[in-house]
Amino acid sequence: MPQGVPVHVPADGLTTRQRRNRALVVVHTGAGKGKSTAAFGLALRGWNQGWAVGVFQFVKSAKWKVGEESVLRTLGRLHAETGEGGPVTWHKMGEGWSWIQREGTQEDHAEAARQGWEQIKRDLAAETYRVYVLDEFTYPMKWGWVDVDEVVAVLRDRPGSQHVVITGRDADPRLIEAADLVTEMTKIKHPMDAGQKGQRGIEW
Amino acid sequence: MPQGVPVHVPADGLTTRQRRNRALVVVHTGAGKGKSTAAFGLALRGWNQGWAVGVFQFVKSAKWKVGEESVLRTLGRLHAETGEGGPVTWHKMGEGWSWIQREGTQEDHAEAARQGWEQIKRDLAAETYRVYVLDEFTYPMKWGWVDVDEVVAVLRDRPGSQHVVITGRDADPRLIEAADLVTEMTKIKHPMDAGQKGQRGIEW
Repeated sequence: MPQGVPVHVPADGLTTRQRRNRALVVVHTGAGKGKSTAAFGLALRGWNQGWAVGVFQFVKSAKWKVGEESVLRTLGRLHAETGEGGPVTWHKMGEGWSWIQREGTQEDHAEAARQGWEQIKRDLAAETYRVYVLDEFTYPMKWGWVDVDEVVAVLRDRPGSQHVVITGRDADPRLIEAADLVTEMTKIKHPMDAGQKGQRGIEW
Repeated sequence: MPQGVPVHVPADGLTTRQRRNRALVVVHTGAGKGKSTAAFGLALRGWNQGWAVGVFQFVKSAKWKVGEESVLRTLGRLHAETGEGGPVTWHKMGEGWSWIQREGTQEDHAEAARQGWEQIKRDLAAETYRVYVLDEFTYPMKWGWVDVDEVVAVLRDRPGSQHVVITGRDADPRLIEAADLVTEMTKIKHPMDAGQKGQRGIEW
């Protein structure tokens, strides 16, 4: 992609440099593939800059995203051993928690999601990380477990330079309005349409 | 994302297991962000499976994708040192080559792209890698430097189990037809719309 030229320069009182380095809220939504994968890619770029990376995974799964988790944990270990890149912290909400609700009651899942969000609020206030991946975080908002207006206010008022990437289908319009960068991933064609199931190395 | 149920089972004579492990041609297209980032994410999953990964970068740039390149090269080095993950090879077409044509003539760029494609054909025939990322490869096809019908035929007839991911805008309809998994990334909102330029850790 070429480097674009801004279509207008806002009268926000910021210098180009300040505006350039303003931390972003990024949303990957839509029914297509690649939402989480692209978010983890941003986390990798942050790692490469030596930034502290925090991943909050709002969907527990035995298989999905195991590849990403393994690679990011490997890079975090590399940082601990050699100082290369940045530290990586990987949170799984409630561990036993799953949005397809294999175990536990719905109220357990709602509570786990709320606790995850409380942790994120504490970390944002403490500036614990430079990059946050809130993976599948649109769902607890969609289901009313976490209040969208509160999320928008917390993101707007977060201190310092903290980038936040949120993934998941059906992002709330208020979140999209509040975000700086929003991409919709749309399925054009999927192997499952032709009777193929997910496979190792591609889906996880 | 939940694991889907195939909408129909094709009469292709394959067992479910054979169908499941059929190597894929994946296309990430559209004007939105995340096409390359999601492709590199698939490469990381392959690395995590211990697969040989080959990246062919059809756009040279001082800044874009430096994070991905650095991380994948780090993981490749880790493999060489410890045996963890898989080997990584990173090709940049013609090095001095750039689709925004800062240097060299257009014919130089066309020739570099053709040479890159010849290398990919040799590697597919030799089964050099298990995962190929052909980054921004839609452009040499769009500009007529590489023949789309030949690409489709080579991908269709490639031996063994080799996954191929192609990124870039304006994917040719013949390529989309030939692919197994196609996702379109659509821009909903971008910071440049608000006067912000690309920044470290996010764009590269």
